[in-house]
Amino acid sequence: MNLSTDCILLAHGGGGELMNRLIKERFLPPLRNDWLMPLTDAAVLPWSDGRPVFTTDSFVVTPLEFPGGDIGRLAVAGTVNDLSVMGAEPVALSLGLILEEGLPFSVLDRILSSIATTAREAGVPIVTGDTKVIERRRRDTPSNSAVVEGIFINTAGLGRLPDGVRIRPERIEPGDQVLINGPIAEHGLTIMSVRNGIGFESSLRSDAAPLNELIGRVLDSGADVKFMRDPTRGGLAGVLADISDARRLTVEVFEERVPLNAAARHVAEMLGLDPFSVANEGKVVAVVAAADRDRALNAMRSHPLGRHAACIGQVTESRPPLVELVTRTGGRRIVQRPYGEELPRIC
Amino acid sequence: MNLSTDCILLAHGGGGELMNRLIKERFLPPLRNDWLMPLTDAAVLPWSDGRPVFTTDSFVVTPLEFPGGDIGRLAVAGTVNDLSVMGAEPVALSLGLILEEGLPFSVLDRILSSIATTAREAGVPIVTGDTKVIERRRRDTPSNSAVVEGIFINTAGLGRLPDGVRIRPERIEPGDQVLINGPIAEHGLTIMSVRNGIGFESSLRSDAAPLNELIGRVLDSGADVKFMRDPTRGGLAGVLADISDARRLTVEVFEERVPLNAAARHVAEMLGLDPFSVANEGKVVAVVAAADRDRALNAMRSHPLGRHAACIGQVTESRPPLVELVTRTGGRRIVQRPYGEELPRIC
Repeated sequence: MNLSTDCILLAHGGGGELMNRLIKERFLPPLRNDWLMPLTDAAVLPWSDGRPVFTTDSFVVTPLEFPGGDIGRLAVAGTVNDLSVMGAEPVALSLGLILEEGLPFSVLDRILSSIATTAREAGVPIVTGDTKVIERRRRDTPSNSAVVEGIFINTAGLGRLPDGVRIRPERIEPGDQVLINGPIAEHGLTIMSVRNGIGFESSLRSDAAPLNELIGRVLDSGADVKFMRDPTRGGLAGVLADISDARRLTVEVFEERVPLNAAARHVAEMLGLDPFSVANEGKVVAVVAAADRDRALNAMRSHPLGRHAACIGQVTESRPPLVELVTRTGGRRIVQRPYGEELPRIC
Repeated sequence: MNLSTDCILLAHGGGGELMNRLIKERFLPPLRNDWLMPLTDAAVLPWSDGRPVFTTDSFVVTPLEFPGGDIGRLAVAGTVNDLSVMGAEPVALSLGLILEEGLPFSVLDRILSSIATTAREAGVPIVTGDTKVIERRRRDTPSNSAVVEGIFINTAGLGRLPDGVRIRPERIEPGDQVLINGPIAEHGLTIMSVRNGIGFESSLRSDAAPLNELIGRVLDSGADVKFMRDPTRGGLAGVLADISDARRLTVEVFEERVPLNAAARHVAEMLGLDPFSVANEGKVVAVVAAADRDRALNAMRSHPLGRHAACIGQVTESRPPLVELVTRTGGRRIVQRPYGEELPRIC
């Protein structure tokens, strides 16, 4: 590899001529749009009514590329989804890149292309950006001391909350139904299976996807949605704990109703992981009024990303408040909020 | 150091109970505000009139702490300033933290406190955040192979552009005057002098500061401001090149009028650096209509961060268009846009 022409140098982060060229030759061709193009210090956006919604997420996943996606797809989908679960329409994304010296342009180009493709899929423009370069470093674990060149991505998102949206966890009440748009654990298990050398033999793929269109259909259906969250780090178990904590109510979940594909179940067993605690990147958990369950479920199922949507449980008044799983055999066990980090660098 | 209680573990990035505790015990006490507190996936903000302005910046400076500031102060001031130079009022910031495993809580707490203090100084709340943890790594340079624990910070910013602000580089014309609010090169030279072991003996301090109040005074003065930019990476030379490029006009700058303190001049000479190419983090360069020069200058000087403001030059029609420095001795030399990276990891 010719170091001066084929990969990122520290000088690309210097704010000088080399950075200008990096932006013009590699960033603008895939990402160009009317808001980004003035290349000023900030983007000026149009605005109609509603309130601004603001979110941020950083992505540090290893490996950078995996079956079903890459860090670029994750970074766009993750922030679009964080806006969407608030009931907001995503308006614009920012893109903050931290590149490691030595990163091959070929990898950078593939990830920029994936960012552009996912942003188009979501219909949300990237309007402002920033790039820094850090020194090439070695991991500190002797077993894994190869030089790694990485990318860290931050995306922040601006959304518009239409007047009248009433998604608020304090509105959760006994009888509310808990829905999910499809099978769980596929992102986290894909990452872990690649790291363990079994990823490319399995049919498992990350579910990373922007959910704004699917969530828009649920809201447009007129169903009374009380709460939504995307079960990323902490998995489904983490979001169920959030639902229980919101008003100190019990969430009763039926194991047989929770969508889980055979490939995911198999990999989870091999790796000794609980699919309930594993990250998803294209899933939303929604709490809806009991009377609106079928309306919301049908809206989800009308979208390609919700074909396998299911009602997995309900909110009850049982004391003490906790998340309770009714197993296939009719037993009951408590689902705990995951304590720490079974899966480092998952997103 | 007790690893389980005194520093960041990979598990703090896992989205589970340990991350919840990190947020509640370390992040909320300094940063708490009404917008942040719901701890939802995104913050819902108030809005009046005007258009949204959106920007992002990542910070990877080493060392993390230096005379006059730290990475936290930089991250808040940098994004506030990127909004302010567009003529926007900063409304809210996001905070994306990437922490290295092993980072002592004592360092994290100091930087969070600095973030909170600088945000209060600017009067801009941090309304949403995200934290990831990456493995501890070694730098790849044998001369500097100590284990380093770092912090990378991304701040994105949302601002409000009042109707009627007409800051647009295409409005620059011959006769316009070029102003700066104080002495140059102090941030970059501070970082480089600390790295070279001479920092703490010098009186030099980083100029990192939020400029929204100072810039507000200039705009409120009624001066016709055509363009503003903060001379960070690329330094004053980079911004002068931007001004020249905007309408292919010449910028004539007088060396004797450019504020440069003795300590900075001395360190620049010792390190062999051109102060024109060194980063500033509390400076703004403004291009104003000739008739409004004194009005804008007086507005700058009325603010503590603009006491040493100066008019350093003007826009002319000389051909070919370039940035020309009139030296103390009356000679003329061309100022080039810095090519690459004299100063890695400066911000």
